Amino acid sequence: MCELSTLTVRIGFGKLGNIGSAPLLEFLLDERAERKDIEVRIVSSGAKMGVEHAVDVAQKLNEFKPDLAVVTSPNAALPGPTKLREILISSKVLTIVVSDSPAKKVVQDIEKAGAGYLIVEADAMIGARREFLDPAEMALFNADLFKVLTVGGVFNLLWQEIDKVIQSIQKGQAPTLPRIMISKEKAIEASGLNNPYARTKAMAAHEIARRVADLTVEGCFVVKEWERYTQLVAAAHEMMRAAARLADEAREIDKAEDMILRTPHNDEGTALQKRKLLEKPVKPDIAPH
Amino acid sequence: MCELSTLTVRIGFGKLGNIGSAPLLEFLLDERAERKDIEVRIVSSGAKMGVEHAVDVAQKLNEFKPDLAVVTSPNAALPGPTKLREILISSKVLTIVVSDSPAKKVVQDIEKAGAGYLIVEADAMIGARREFLDPAEMALFNADLFKVLTVGGVFNLLWQEIDKVIQSIQKGQAPTLPRIMISKEKAIEASGLNNPYARTKAMAAHEIARRVADLTVEGCFVVKEWERYTQLVAAAHEMMRAAARLADEAREIDKAEDMILRTPHNDEGTALQKRKLLEKPVKPDIAPH
Amino acid sequence: MCELSTLTVRIGFGKLGNIGSAPLLEFLLDERAERKDIEVRIVSSGAKMGVEHAVDVAQKLNEFKPDLAVVTSPNAALPGPTKLREILISSKVLTIVVSDSPAKKVVQDIEKAGAGYLIVEADAMIGARREFLDPAEMALFNADLFKVLTVGGVFNLLWQEIDKVIQSIQKGQAPTLPRIMISKEKAIEASGLNNPYARTKAMAAHEIARRVADLTVEGCFVVKEWERYTQLVAAAHEMMRAAARLADEAREIDKAEDMILRTPHNDEGTALQKRKLLEKPVKPDIAPH
Amino acid sequence: MCELSTLTVRIGFGKLGNIGSAPLLEFLLDERAERKDIEVRIVSSGAKMGVEHAVDVAQKLNEFKPDLAVVTSPNAALPGPTKLREILISSKVLTIVVSDSPAKKVVQDIEKAGAGYLIVEADAMIGARREFLDPAEMALFNADLFKVLTVGGVFNLLWQEIDKVIQSIQKGQAPTLPRIMISKEKAIEASGLNNPYARTKAMAAHEIARRVADLTVEGCFVVKEWERYTQLVAAAHEMMRAAARLADEAREIDKAEDMILRTPHNDEGTALQKRKLLEKPVKPDIAPH
Amino acid sequence: MCELSTLTVRIGFGKLGNIGSAPLLEFLLDERAERKDIEVRIVSSGAKMGVEHAVDVAQKLNEFKPDLAVVTSPNAALPGPTKLREILISSKVLTIVVSDSPAKKVVQDIEKAGAGYLIVEADAMIGARREFLDPAEMALFNADLFKVLTVGGVFNLLWQEIDKVIQSIQKGQAPTLPRIMISKEKAIEASGLNNPYARTKAMAAHEIARRVADLTVEGCFVVKEWERYTQLVAAAHEMMRAAARLADEAREIDKAEDMILRTPHNDEGTALQKRKLLEKPVKPDIAPH
Amino acid sequence: MCELSTLTVRIGFGKLGNIGSAPLLEFLLDERAERKDIEVRIVSSGAKMGVEHAVDVAQKLNEFKPDLAVVTSPNAALPGPTKLREILISSKVLTIVVSDSPAKKVVQDIEKAGAGYLIVEADAMIGARREFLDPAEMALFNADLFKVLTVGGVFNLLWQEIDKVIQSIQKGQAPTLPRIMISKEKAIEASGLNNPYARTKAMAAHEIARRVADLTVEGCFVVKEWERYTQLVAAAHEMMRAAARLADEAREIDKAEDMILRTPHNDEGTALQKRKLLEKPVKPDIAPH
Repeated sequence: MCELSTLTVRIGFGKLGNIGSAPLLEFLLDERAERKDIEVRIVSSGAKMGVEHAVDVAQKLNEFKPDLAVVTSPNAALPGPTKLREILISSKVLTIVVSDSPAKKVVQDIEKAGAGYLIVEADAMIGARREFLDPAEMALFNADLFKVLTVGGVFNLLWQEIDKVIQSIQKGQAPTLPRIMISKEKAIEASGLNNPYARTKAMAAHEIARRVADLTVEGCFVVKEWERYTQLVAAAHEMMRAAARLADEAREIDKAEDMILRTPHNDEGTALQKRKLLEKPVKPDIAPH
Repeated sequence: MCELSTLTVRIGFGKLGNIGSAPLLEFLLDERAERKDIEVRIVSSGAKMGVEHAVDVAQKLNEFKPDLAVVTSPNAALPGPTKLREILISSKVLTIVVSDSPAKKVVQDIEKAGAGYLIVEADAMIGARREFLDPAEMALFNADLFKVLTVGGVFNLLWQEIDKVIQSIQKGQAPTLPRIMISKEKAIEASGLNNPYARTKAMAAHEIARRVADLTVEGCFVVKEWERYTQLVAAAHEMMRAAARLADEAREIDKAEDMILRTPHNDEGTALQKRKLLEKPVKPDIAPH
Repeated sequence: MCELSTLTVRIGFGKLGNIGSAPLLEFLLDERAERKDIEVRIVSSGAKMGVEHAVDVAQKLNEFKPDLAVVTSPNAALPGPTKLREILISSKVLTIVVSDSPAKKVVQDIEKAGAGYLIVEADAMIGARREFLDPAEMALFNADLFKVLTVGGVFNLLWQEIDKVIQSIQKGQAPTLPRIMISKEKAIEASGLNNPYARTKAMAAHEIARRVADLTVEGCFVVKEWERYTQLVAAAHEMMRAAARLADEAREIDKAEDMILRTPHNDEGTALQKRKLLEKPVKPDIAPH
Repeated sequence: MCELSTLTVRIGFGKLGNIGSAPLLEFLLDERAERKDIEVRIVSSGAKMGVEHAVDVAQKLNEFKPDLAVVTSPNAALPGPTKLREILISSKVLTIVVSDSPAKKVVQDIEKAGAGYLIVEADAMIGARREFLDPAEMALFNADLFKVLTVGGVFNLLWQEIDKVIQSIQKGQAPTLPRIMISKEKAIEASGLNNPYARTKAMAAHEIARRVADLTVEGCFVVKEWERYTQLVAAAHEMMRAAARLADEAREIDKAEDMILRTPHNDEGTALQKRKLLEKPVKPDIAPH
Repeated sequence: MCELSTLTVRIGFGKLGNIGSAPLLEFLLDERAERKDIEVRIVSSGAKMGVEHAVDVAQKLNEFKPDLAVVTSPNAALPGPTKLREILISSKVLTIVVSDSPAKKVVQDIEKAGAGYLIVEADAMIGARREFLDPAEMALFNADLFKVLTVGGVFNLLWQEIDKVIQSIQKGQAPTLPRIMISKEKAIEASGLNNPYARTKAMAAHEIARRVADLTVEGCFVVKEWERYTQLVAAAHEMMRAAARLADEAREIDKAEDMILRTPHNDEGTALQKRKLLEKPVKPDIAPH
Repeated sequence: MCELSTLTVRIGFGKLGNIGSAPLLEFLLDERAERKDIEVRIVSSGAKMGVEHAVDVAQKLNEFKPDLAVVTSPNAALPGPTKLREILISSKVLTIVVSDSPAKKVVQDIEKAGAGYLIVEADAMIGARREFLDPAEMALFNADLFKVLTVGGVFNLLWQEIDKVIQSIQKGQAPTLPRIMISKEKAIEASGLNNPYARTKAMAAHEIARRVADLTVEGCFVVKEWERYTQLVAAAHEMMRAAARLADEAREIDKAEDMILRTPHNDEGTALQKRKLLEKPVKPDIAPH
């Protein structure tokens, strides 16, 4: 019964560029700033993700002496993100790469290097054309994407996998780093959605979000005529908005049955569980479910 | 006509804890990672915002030798945020504080210290009760809040004010740091919304978002019975969801008239302008309207 | 088992000006015109609420010789409403004041005078500016407000409190007049909503409706520039529309679980109860709940 | 240019029972309580509409010495409403009957007696079955109906016709009392809706509302099995909710074009006109339209 | 337990013109193309429904030697549809007429001739005016109508009645041909909707769809001024869109309770049953319901 | 000015199985049954699409002696559809194949054989699993798909291409048969949507619909565990419902601007044009656009 949180685990987040999985990632671990078992630092170079940025970010992270590093970026196969994780890995820091679909081509390299990865297929590239993407459009795309990733279970999977590593470190065990391609089925499994139609709606949202990338890639890298690519990336963002609406619909269904799964972290870093709004969260091993 | 971007401005973001204005702030300045006129670093201690975190974050930021520091936190009157800005100011770094309504009580101090501030009234406190707030609920609240802050003009105001300082630095002028309480009317003015009903809907969204804080503060700090406070903070998040829906409705109206204002940054850091989806953005001084 | 409704209670409604709680109030007591235990008269001066109107309305009501008077008006602290209740009280008529938030400043006076009160906080002032408020806008605001007050429990509380007084009079007991500030929590308690998310949505609707008054008061009494106040009151009405939508959403949730509470009055004035659509209403003491 | 409002017109509203056109009728004439050209009294017997109620209401109205009486009730062919108007007419009071479709069978009688009428076809009977209709359901039905009657032009037609009579009286002319069956086409003409699809949506709402009565009449008077009639009247109210949603959609379309017609009364009782939200209302003869 | 499907029943569909019940009718019998117990042919003359078309269609159908003929058309009282069924009946083919409300005037004739009928009251005439109805509007009207007919139970009733006849033929029994006016109550009974509010919403959708015909008939045959009839038929289609939305809402309610009735045909033509999404369909006699 | 429609073109539709493009196809050519320039027959074997069905359908079509045959089926590469078109082509009938994405593998064969094709990429396979697909689910999927294909321009493209061939035949010209893969951009071009956001929404709907096939193919042919494939096909149908909603949203935007393109056929088979609801359609060469 006596759980001594004898070790504070130090987690360093290194962020290069932006993907939907990144901006809220550290808060997913400690949503009410209550955890006493972790100490967190984030270092980022903002939108830029060059090799020189990677070096600088890695260095600052290393100065924090993290037990665990989580590095986020689009396309982890690019030189910058590659450099970032290489420096960390060579510094003997446990490293988890969080990235999007284009990163699939380096997951074997990552694995060989002894690092973990969480590849978020639904974390689609934004429609980054100057005729279309301004600060407002960027923020709205992220807001829609957050809804899909949250309700569809991706965010759950991210923090749960990181939490597992934290717990291993705390217990002095050799952590098994996660190596997961987060597909629609894996995500929905982690979503905790109760109603089966809520689950299928969230899965539909996931799939639509994933397919957003088809249009943004076509619009950003294939089509050259500006009138055409502007429409393609605009259509892609409409897809994401539709996906967010489906995700919202899914969650509302679980609300209507008072079956929203809530998994708040307590101050020791344990994710408690509850379903009914008006009940107390309990530790998972004693949760009815 | 020849605009030499001779100076790269170094901007350091120091983030303690989370407010809705923070997670996407650096990307609002450079939404497509194209700007060559700025170099950005973010250092954050995640959810925690103690004095010791502030000291560490400030030190790392100072090592970056920023021309401008932007510090974000809830309630800038707390010891941690206070320490963070004090260290930066005493290091002669131009500093802008971005915070929420409780920070109003220190804006005079901030001004006296020579720093700037952007107080975002609509950036309401989250419903941080363990019976309610888990990672998913946290992420959804932020997604809804981002919609309100984006459509309602708050995000525009944030990046525009920071851009002004950047431009002054680039031109070698002594920058005037912003000192603004971002009220509903100031925000809507910055929103660029065209249709007057879109504007009133966005203003309604802003006001609802702002009033979310009444319920979360009551739920987190005043009411002690857990069944009561759980309902209060849950009602607060429903308010935010309703506000996000209103914001979305506002933007859809401008879409229906093909009058969405887009202000993409070019690689020199100038915010271009356009209204029609199928037109090229131009520099503001030659933009019609 | 034999309930003799020996006494027909005479209820006089005196209405000065309009608040959302007033237009349907008498029908809330007798929604299908079946009750044999009450006799009702309404006298009103329409939109006007001067002292001379109050005197005339009071006189006509007195001629009806009511056992109970219910007087409705905005801001019961104004001279007209004050005169109306004073005449009735001085005529020894049991009097209940139904009014909105500005009436709070006279509730102690009302209590001292021996009258009751029901102060409806969510009954927000309309956006009464000539540039904005026309007959259509007035009617739509009231329709939205009715939805919030109905679903959120305010209307239930109003008729239940009046019914209690009627029952006391019928039984020959000295009635305890209601003295209630109808807050969000009291209202939701009376709403009969079953699903907890329906309740939090209705509470959110209540809170938004209540805050409408902040904008209408600012728009009608504080701001002088017509472009500004027109937008403020228009934003206020958008808030009310959003609140009505939330209220509707709340009720739809209870429909989806077939748990709508229905409390039809029978011809003896007893409010029966039922939850399932296809069941008969029964007297509360035998209702399962 | 000098319009002397030399005469204050006294208008008495006599209300027996409830129809959707009644509760807000006096406020449609004076939505901001500004008019100085009219003096208004309402006398009502609430939900009951017996002959004895009619006699009492008529007597009280006569004491007010109205220049014009407006009597509202369901089915003006019933003995109570008939008695009410007969007393007023025999007292030489100009009388306008406002009623619903069943009143059509007495419009010739009303005309012969020298009175006017406004028969509101869309003002459908409520689903008055004890298994279904409680205070909340009654209030929601009215709220939905108000939306349909407002947006669809019925309310406009009501106050405009009464205003015409008021103006004739003020000018000392012999008023022509309105004798109108308010059909879907007449209503939409009065709605002021600008966009043609807004108009067709509002007409659809009107028609659905009108057809609500088919189901409520069947449910209240034809079908005897309680499970069947409960479903019929519940379906009828769902129709009204769908109609209200269509009406709302219609108005939102005109908002999206900034073309909402607003016709606020000024203090002399003239209905001004405007379309754009941010313009001043003007007298109709100088309105551009 | 051994069900030998010894006989393949040959079903010929003869279609003249279009009604909403026709385009998917054969697929309602065999939605996954699995049934081995029926052989189906459809012959149609498209939009045209003259006597000469009828003769040709009938002849081609007869060549197929159907055990059962199902003939669909608007207004089965017209010469073409009449001729079609007369030829089939005189060829001793069991014949079921599927038509809309105007067919009611010939149902006695149909019965006397020994044929069956299924009259779909909600299958409202389209708004067939050249100023309004183009291919797109036609397709959208049908899509909306399909939703109403599906969710509201009409389609279920159609295939179930045809299935009964098929089964009788297979068993060598003399089939009882259906003779049903499909009213709102009969349809809802067949809908399988579980939640009572889902049922009342679907009934409301049915009733609105049925009333669409009032406006299309008025717009197509009564009103001569093109501006007026264009608005009438456009309003009618808005009614159908509103009805489709209600139908969708009804089904979503049953989804939220995981109670959607599914009745897939197996390869022997038996309609299995299930309610929960994640359960196997079973034969009706062993379905729990 | 004198357009003699000297030739009636005979069009035979041969339908095997079902795709979304098929059930309304003949009505798209003659939506109000007014055209005098075409004579149409449809022969279909319903859900089945075997070679023996193809032979029978082809034979019956040939008896009609069509000038043009349009054959519809899923996957035109299957033996049945192949046989159907081969018989027609060998009978010297001009033949157009309308099919879905799997047909791409035979378009070269079709071309070589001298036939035309219209491959509808968005015409996604239905979720044909017995645990999921029943008659109701089938009908609803088609209704949603019709909305996407209509608003997104696919249906327009289908009838316009067929109309072109008809016109060539009428003029005695050698028709150029269409050979088109209907992609998202080609479809939107044909949609006639006016507002650019309406276009991007419709394109998003098109893309989502197209991607439905990924999940239905996976669910029907790849995944073997019934709980998994049931969820996959259910998610696919939720995607289609979301796509239909987007399509509806797109059309509503054009309604709000009174810019719906309408292209009704006149009795000579010419597609007229109009945009404003209250204007007369005119021949395209005199349409202002």
